[in-house]
Amino acid sequence: MKAAYYQGNRTFTIEEGTQEPLLPGMVRLKVAYCGVCGTDVHIYHGKMDKRVQLPQVIGHEVSGEVVEIAPDVTSVKAGQKVAVRPLQPGEADPSDNGNTHIGKNLKFIGIDSVGGMQSYWNVPAHTLHLLPEALPLHIGALIEPLAVACHDVRMGELQKGEYVVVIGGGPIGLLIALVAQFKGALVLISEPNAKRLELCQSLGLQVVNPMETDVVKEVESFTKSAMADVVFEVSGVQAGVQVMTQLPRARGRIVMVAIHSEPKAVDLFRFFWRELKLIGARVYEPQDFEEAIRLAASGVLPLDKLITQVSPLKDIQQVFETIDQNPAGMKYLLDCQKS
Amino acid sequence: MKAAYYQGNRTFTIEEGTQEPLLPGMVRLKVAYCGVCGTDVHIYHGKMDKRVQLPQVIGHEVSGEVVEIAPDVTSVKAGQKVAVRPLQPGEADPSDNGNTHIGKNLKFIGIDSVGGMQSYWNVPAHTLHLLPEALPLHIGALIEPLAVACHDVRMGELQKGEYVVVIGGGPIGLLIALVAQFKGALVLISEPNAKRLELCQSLGLQVVNPMETDVVKEVESFTKSAMADVVFEVSGVQAGVQVMTQLPRARGRIVMVAIHSEPKAVDLFRFFWRELKLIGARVYEPQDFEEAIRLAASGVLPLDKLITQVSPLKDIQQVFETIDQNPAGMKYLLDCQKS
Repeated sequence: MKAAYYQGNRTFTIEEGTQEPLLPGMVRLKVAYCGVCGTDVHIYHGKMDKRVQLPQVIGHEVSGEVVEIAPDVTSVKAGQKVAVRPLQPGEADPSDNGNTHIGKNLKFIGIDSVGGMQSYWNVPAHTLHLLPEALPLHIGALIEPLAVACHDVRMGELQKGEYVVVIGGGPIGLLIALVAQFKGALVLISEPNAKRLELCQSLGLQVVNPMETDVVKEVESFTKSAMADVVFEVSGVQAGVQVMTQLPRARGRIVMVAIHSEPKAVDLFRFFWRELKLIGARVYEPQDFEEAIRLAASGVLPLDKLITQVSPLKDIQQVFETIDQNPAGMKYLLDCQKS
Repeated sequence: MKAAYYQGNRTFTIEEGTQEPLLPGMVRLKVAYCGVCGTDVHIYHGKMDKRVQLPQVIGHEVSGEVVEIAPDVTSVKAGQKVAVRPLQPGEADPSDNGNTHIGKNLKFIGIDSVGGMQSYWNVPAHTLHLLPEALPLHIGALIEPLAVACHDVRMGELQKGEYVVVIGGGPIGLLIALVAQFKGALVLISEPNAKRLELCQSLGLQVVNPMETDVVKEVESFTKSAMADVVFEVSGVQAGVQVMTQLPRARGRIVMVAIHSEPKAVDLFRFFWRELKLIGARVYEPQDFEEAIRLAASGVLPLDKLITQVSPLKDIQQVFETIDQNPAGMKYLLDCQKS
């Protein structure tokens, strides 16, 4: 078996992986595809070297096939196709209030522990969701980010017919837009990158380029002055935070999807004045994975259009370098059986 | 009749007021008491001279008695005691989405138009809520701020048995704490002023002084590590904004009550990480006034303890000067028949 090791210093090496023994509760997967997440790029940039343990196999957007199960596992069997929900709850903390998916002691598999950028991967059986036979495994690798989008839309309590603005048209922003549109919302994406805008438009989404157009005026026009029912802040930049409070109607909702690693200046007056709601949303719960699989299997979303490139695992170094040079790209997948 | 005119430059004058004709839909009140709101102090400080029209009678926390009604008014009659809900909705805007109490064209009576710091006052009949005969009129002047507290607690979706932290122990913070406690919450108030802390304690509330104690640790101890279900940010200062995101449990709520006139640095990462909610809350709806009147009439809240001083209207200048010199004070009432 082959495995890609992140060595720090923007470097991956491909090596013979270690086939760990299959502990109780665990399942061995033959990894089909592993998507590259923004977080993986963040790791590659050395920003999370304190959290990962070098050298480490990373990656958490995985589809694969069950090849072996520990004797106590009954939920899956060999030969089944699965997607991985890469969350390992830790000990419950009183402040979690039952929210295990964001628990204080949660570990994120593929960041805090070994990930899926290898040809075989041992994962806890509880992380697995069965994929329908008919779902191609390269689409299966999109289930994880699609589950993020399903979670974000659910947390935003989106209703059919509502006006939605998505700030940031990267992979997650675009998936949110597609899910919201499928659920009957009227969606506008704000994104500065021309190539991404083009892709969004080709998928039937309304777009605005905030570098060229006043987004507030555009939303006024798009909503016939009703303004947005729900705004998704996915940009992670100050400009996004600045505009997010200007777009909702009275009692409108803003879903905080982006990871703002530093405090940002927020117009709290606007929250008071128009009784806005800010709703934090992180990862997913099992039901979001189930919804993502249903949506993907039904074929209602143009998921294949989000795949920029599929590359053999052995080319991982080149893939990360390409991502760095091509901010307009969407999803890059690694074919983990080609190594 | 006598009226107190704000003349700008921290100056009030008492003059013979103008008895305006009673237009359709209007009611003439004999004003009993008018409370001094933080906003009135803000006006006195010259911070809202662009919004008020000098010279202007201000004041909006009013109890009084109906003395005359326009011929088309049927909702009240002479002799009835009332409190005033000082909101004048303007033309509905599409972005209001039916929320008339915070509509784009809303006018606030007593700021945007003539207020209650006078012996007689013409107000729209739709602003009036009947007070029970047994409710003393000086307590009636607290209905407006109490309705703010009822609204804030309602917007926070507070449930019995929940842990609540109120950041800021001024009149509104204290009223929120009392309403939340009455509804079965376990309440802790964070307030730096020793005299205010003393008052809160004397009313049976748990307190913490953020200048002396680590509020996060105090909340951990107060909640047995469960952390707060609901946090009310009533301080209006950066320190309050900084701590507010550290206090809630996973999926806890933060109600934004304070008026932050400038953008503040907010830990948006924390909203994402723990899926927190920020809920803006402004003024009140009719049901909040009804609830405030029920609570006040039932005598379950120690409202009289919040009244720092009752002064004749003619002493208004001195009252505002006293407030400026005594940040520990709570509610100052003007007796509008003593002029």
